Amino acid sequence: MRETVTAKDVAKLAGVSQSSVSRVYFEGATVSEKTKKRVLDAAEELGYRPNVYARSLITNQSNIIGLVMKGVQNPFYAQVLKRFSSIFKQHGYSILFVYTNNDEIQQEDVETLLNYNVAGVVVTDATMLFSVGEEFKKNHIPLVFFNRKPNTGSFYSVCCNNIDGSRSIAHYLLSKGASELVLITGNVHTSTSIEREKGFCEVLDQQKVSYRKYNSDYTYEGGYQTAMTVLEEKRLPSAFFVANDIMAFGVIDALRKNDVRIPEDTKVVGFDNIAMASWPAYELTTWEQPIEEMIEETVNYLLEEIASYTGFVQDIEVDGKFMERKTT
Amino acid sequence: MRETVTAKDVAKLAGVSQSSVSRVYFEGATVSEKTKKRVLDAAEELGYRPNVYARSLITNQSNIIGLVMKGVQNPFYAQVLKRFSSIFKQHGYSILFVYTNNDEIQQEDVETLLNYNVAGVVVTDATMLFSVGEEFKKNHIPLVFFNRKPNTGSFYSVCCNNIDGSRSIAHYLLSKGASELVLITGNVHTSTSIEREKGFCEVLDQQKVSYRKYNSDYTYEGGYQTAMTVLEEKRLPSAFFVANDIMAFGVIDALRKNDVRIPEDTKVVGFDNIAMASWPAYELTTWEQPIEEMIEETVNYLLEEIASYTGFVQDIEVDGKFMERKTT
Repeated sequence: MRETVTAKDVAKLAGVSQSSVSRVYFEGATVSEKTKKRVLDAAEELGYRPNVYARSLITNQSNIIGLVMKGVQNPFYAQVLKRFSSIFKQHGYSILFVYTNNDEIQQEDVETLLNYNVAGVVVTDATMLFSVGEEFKKNHIPLVFFNRKPNTGSFYSVCCNNIDGSRSIAHYLLSKGASELVLITGNVHTSTSIEREKGFCEVLDQQKVSYRKYNSDYTYEGGYQTAMTVLEEKRLPSAFFVANDIMAFGVIDALRKNDVRIPEDTKVVGFDNIAMASWPAYELTTWEQPIEEMIEETVNYLLEEIASYTGFVQDIEVDGKFMERKTT
Repeated sequence: MRETVTAKDVAKLAGVSQSSVSRVYFEGATVSEKTKKRVLDAAEELGYRPNVYARSLITNQSNIIGLVMKGVQNPFYAQVLKRFSSIFKQHGYSILFVYTNNDEIQQEDVETLLNYNVAGVVVTDATMLFSVGEEFKKNHIPLVFFNRKPNTGSFYSVCCNNIDGSRSIAHYLLSKGASELVLITGNVHTSTSIEREKGFCEVLDQQKVSYRKYNSDYTYEGGYQTAMTVLEEKRLPSAFFVANDIMAFGVIDALRKNDVRIPEDTKVVGFDNIAMASWPAYELTTWEQPIEEMIEETVNYLLEEIASYTGFVQDIEVDGKFMERKTT
């Protein structure tokens, strides 16, 4: 066991009670100036560090935000992690990073978040059982689904306008003369993939334009393999709408490997506008997710609910925008 | 303030003292079977969750590993984060993610780690003042520099064999007939950049082969801009050694933008072997950092030092390997 200096040691040296030591360090507690000085002098002499655990036990709050993430290797989420960490730090919060290797948050992850008495939770690319979510509500811990929209309507969520975005992409491709199209989805149970498919197909159905749909998984390798499958069928579409950028890079690389020229022979549109989309290697036409605004909405909500819990929920949609580059 | 169930509530319902409640939940404490049953029944009725803060106060330990990282947008570090999170989770540890936007760890980051009484710390792409490091030692908190080697010899570090790797790259390029070369470094104060430069230049100096050196910053944009600068000088080298993969992609894109053919007109070698290096868009020749073994060395050391602190330090080097692809 470590020999850390405790409040007990400080109390002993200062000749005061342990609760006096606590009162010096926690806001709102009254203590005489004389006692305060004795405690601070003793603390300095011993190198005492009032610890967040003691503080948490007394105030019943922590300065930890739980961030649940699966796809940290997708540059979109790496950027999201960086921005959340940076902004929460400015507000005095630390990040408990919970990596989940399942699409659904596991019970052990929830236990971790509850055990650390997190002040709030951001869930990015993961889903959660209804019963699991209830545990956070019961403990008055605000939770935001970021870039995911739960069906239940029982949690705050922040997304971009996926349906409008994919409708715009469909209209754009039709305006470019696209006739037969291919849609490559992300993981089929995710709200982003469902919405991007919905908006895109709705427009094509209305305009009676034929398309084929292939389910993939939001990874580069998935995009590459799916494009290879499309190519094996010997029916090259006039354009591909790929549900995120990283898959679109896989599609582009597979097409190039097969000497399909972009945008002459076929076109490719992604979704996200990650930094790589503007790299000369890809110059991908895509839909920009407004990450900064999405993060701002998330942080503001959490800070307000942490200050005064209301349990208020809403599905927030922030407008993204079309980015035309050289793949169309 | 949240209305969470506390040990006090449980004690009241069970008709026992608060310290009896504590003793039920913390290992090694003795309590009668009768008291234990009353406490557990009351806890279940109230939905009491014994919290890690109370546990930490009593045992003076936490199950948190602090992970300090700057370049989360470099896929190398995104992969490192994913693997550390996954492996530490298997060992029952959570990750406190400390994003630092400076090369040197800031005092506020250190305060955060100490305040949470972390069990151990992994510092990836950041440096630390000697005096700051002493604070961890004083508190018997083991710390590993991952992919960085501090000069002081006072901390454990885990790297790949950067000098051997860059020597091998120099020998390889010479065997390919390279004569005039360009070296593009990462951030000049980092041990990885210093060592990669050292091994590379040592071989070229011995063989009396001329080279030019350009300092850059380990980012795609840095690699792109530096290559543009090289091209403006109208002296195309026979090969580029670029100190990491993500910069090498920037170099390749800049060369292609200027219709320089790779590997016909010039060659490019990176360092890291991140997943993207094998993408058809790049097929980059590079030096593979053995991430899995590096992480294993780091985790094993930390777990041993957490179990029984000795303060033992060593600079570990794990052998990487050369990956020949189509840019050479």
